[in-house]
Amino acid sequence: MAIITLTTDFGLKDHYVGAVKGAILSQLPSAVIVDISHLIEKFNIQDAAYILKESYQSFPEKSIHIIGLLSEFKNTGGYVVVENNGHFFISADNGIFSLLFEEYPHKVVELQVDNSQNLSFPVRDVFVKAACLLARGADISMLGTPRSSLLQRLPFRATSMGNIIRGSVVFVDSYGNVMTNISKSLFEQVGKKQPFVIELARSNQIERISSEYNAVPEGEILALFNSSGQLEIAMRNGKVSSMLNLKLNDSITVRFQ
Amino acid sequence: MAIITLTTDFGLKDHYVGAVKGAILSQLPSAVIVDISHLIEKFNIQDAAYILKESYQSFPEKSIHIIGLLSEFKNTGGYVVVENNGHFFISADNGIFSLLFEEYPHKVVELQVDNSQNLSFPVRDVFVKAACLLARGADISMLGTPRSSLLQRLPFRATSMGNIIRGSVVFVDSYGNVMTNISKSLFEQVGKKQPFVIELARSNQIERISSEYNAVPEGEILALFNSSGQLEIAMRNGKVSSMLNLKLNDSITVRFQ
Amino acid sequence: MAIITLTTDFGLKDHYVGAVKGAILSQLPSAVIVDISHLIEKFNIQDAAYILKESYQSFPEKSIHIIGLLSEFKNTGGYVVVENNGHFFISADNGIFSLLFEEYPHKVVELQVDNSQNLSFPVRDVFVKAACLLARGADISMLGTPRSSLLQRLPFRATSMGNIIRGSVVFVDSYGNVMTNISKSLFEQVGKKQPFVIELARSNQIERISSEYNAVPEGEILALFNSSGQLEIAMRNGKVSSMLNLKLNDSITVRFQ
Repeated sequence: MAIITLTTDFGLKDHYVGAVKGAILSQLPSAVIVDISHLIEKFNIQDAAYILKESYQSFPEKSIHIIGLLSEFKNTGGYVVVENNGHFFISADNGIFSLLFEEYPHKVVELQVDNSQNLSFPVRDVFVKAACLLARGADISMLGTPRSSLLQRLPFRATSMGNIIRGSVVFVDSYGNVMTNISKSLFEQVGKKQPFVIELARSNQIERISSEYNAVPEGEILALFNSSGQLEIAMRNGKVSSMLNLKLNDSITVRFQ
Repeated sequence: MAIITLTTDFGLKDHYVGAVKGAILSQLPSAVIVDISHLIEKFNIQDAAYILKESYQSFPEKSIHIIGLLSEFKNTGGYVVVENNGHFFISADNGIFSLLFEEYPHKVVELQVDNSQNLSFPVRDVFVKAACLLARGADISMLGTPRSSLLQRLPFRATSMGNIIRGSVVFVDSYGNVMTNISKSLFEQVGKKQPFVIELARSNQIERISSEYNAVPEGEILALFNSSGQLEIAMRNGKVSSMLNLKLNDSITVRFQ
Repeated sequence: MAIITLTTDFGLKDHYVGAVKGAILSQLPSAVIVDISHLIEKFNIQDAAYILKESYQSFPEKSIHIIGLLSEFKNTGGYVVVENNGHFFISADNGIFSLLFEEYPHKVVELQVDNSQNLSFPVRDVFVKAACLLARGADISMLGTPRSSLLQRLPFRATSMGNIIRGSVVFVDSYGNVMTNISKSLFEQVGKKQPFVIELARSNQIERISSEYNAVPEGEILALFNSSGQLEIAMRNGKVSSMLNLKLNDSITVRFQ
């Protein structure tokens, strides 16, 4: 019983998601199809990469993850199947893999496409076929020709200099909680348990790490390490992103004594 | 083949729903996962209780219902597994059960949690595990220690005095139809088939019960007993909630002659 | 393993979708339920017809498609089960079939309903039962009495006169791409490979057909035949519908030399 997940910017109203699921079930009636999200911001690779990164490892190994955005731009680098950390990913080579993984993935093959074919719906017409072959047990090497490079996008990574960490906002969730790219391990390595100030927009600052959301009174700002071990700025029962006007890619500085 | 349903305020964009489904399938590959709603108003127990109450009994007995809201506030009463009416429910003890059931549930146990654990995502890390144990046939008593009390929220119930019923709006659906807490049985018991007036906002009133939406001309207001036997105020092909500015908890009075 | 799809205007927040899925799983635990869309514009038959038309053929033959909109108006023509192109459809007879199919469907039966029954939720209480009977292998003729007519809605079809095609907008997707009812075959038959102008709102016009979205620079308008072979007006990385203020039923003219 193979699991095929979908992460797209198709939205939930149109026929696109239904058409893709129908195509999967036509080729593999026993497929277990799981929506990760269809509400990725249109054409936003960074948004898709964050959401997939934070969810795919919950799935069993050998799960197959279809990524449906910027897939029409086949000229940007073709269609690829990637095997990494025990999972499979099928996408256009649009730069998403450089945001999804820290290192070059374990295996990458390029799917052959017939250029005479109408390719206006590649997720349904190309990606699903590859997914169903993998689900039936095909080895990734049978699906295409090996590739040794992928389109690179520069991920925003947190950096440290002396006793200062400079990071940025990588995601704002639907609660208005703000996720940063500052990991607990970098924080501890630079901080050496010294007192610190997390500097936010509008002269706001936080001077301690909480263990959970309810560690502060309602409406108060807090910082914690989320379940992925990344620094998160939140507000108990409130939207910290609106309150402080924090947006994607805004900078977050941690200054230790 | 166990059914696990999800009722949360996670929204449909973020990675939370995907992560929870992945965790379920990792522990129980054959699970049938059904979304009831992920668009519960953030932190709104009443909203979640209404939606779950109106849908869970459609599922087969022994279905397992995960409730994912206000679950981070573990201090408010811990995490519980409840068995009632032949169904299982897993939730934080946040008051939802007093809105979901008229009586104290049949069986309640409290899940043991390891406080040294990062508990910022309890639905994925605690609730799923309990759900999968139940799905494999574990008895509820094996999952935790019995509890004899649950957090109470005061549900709004309709009351009657003489020939008058005072009720309130308990839900407004996406069509703008207005659900009340006035049941057909209370209506018939107080009304004794006498003429009546349903008093609504803005001096509007309704003097009869229709059997279906199309019993009146388009754009006209009507009252009917919905499929759950509760009094519903609706408008044929229109949004009665906007028209009359009816909102959650607004009062609805029925006055019999 | 039967596939039952859902196309409704229920929205994704309320309890309606969950209740329908629960009812299906109660009657047929092995059912594979697929959401096509629950975000059909309220009461909009044309919207539902387009979305279902563009997706149902991706599903395997014998799939069962439940259509849940304008279903409460049972007086408009009763509830019907339709077999066409190897698929089954269950709906109120609200005119949708005249928009979904060019010809009268292969087989049509009317479901018997008990008028004493509360029929405020027919999708759950009537359609699901018919779907599960079909899924268990019942012949359509066993479900009701044959019908030789269905409610007609006038579909907007493209017409040609001399070297001019007059069509219209039949759908605007979430990317803002504009789908027309002008097919590639009509275009080629009338056009005879002559030069042409596609006339759009605001004096905009397009003089060539592209093979894919990235055939033009970013932000530029283009025309292509989509994966269903219909003329589509799009913009690379932009919303052509907003840019040109194109809406449902707006006219699109193609003028050949």
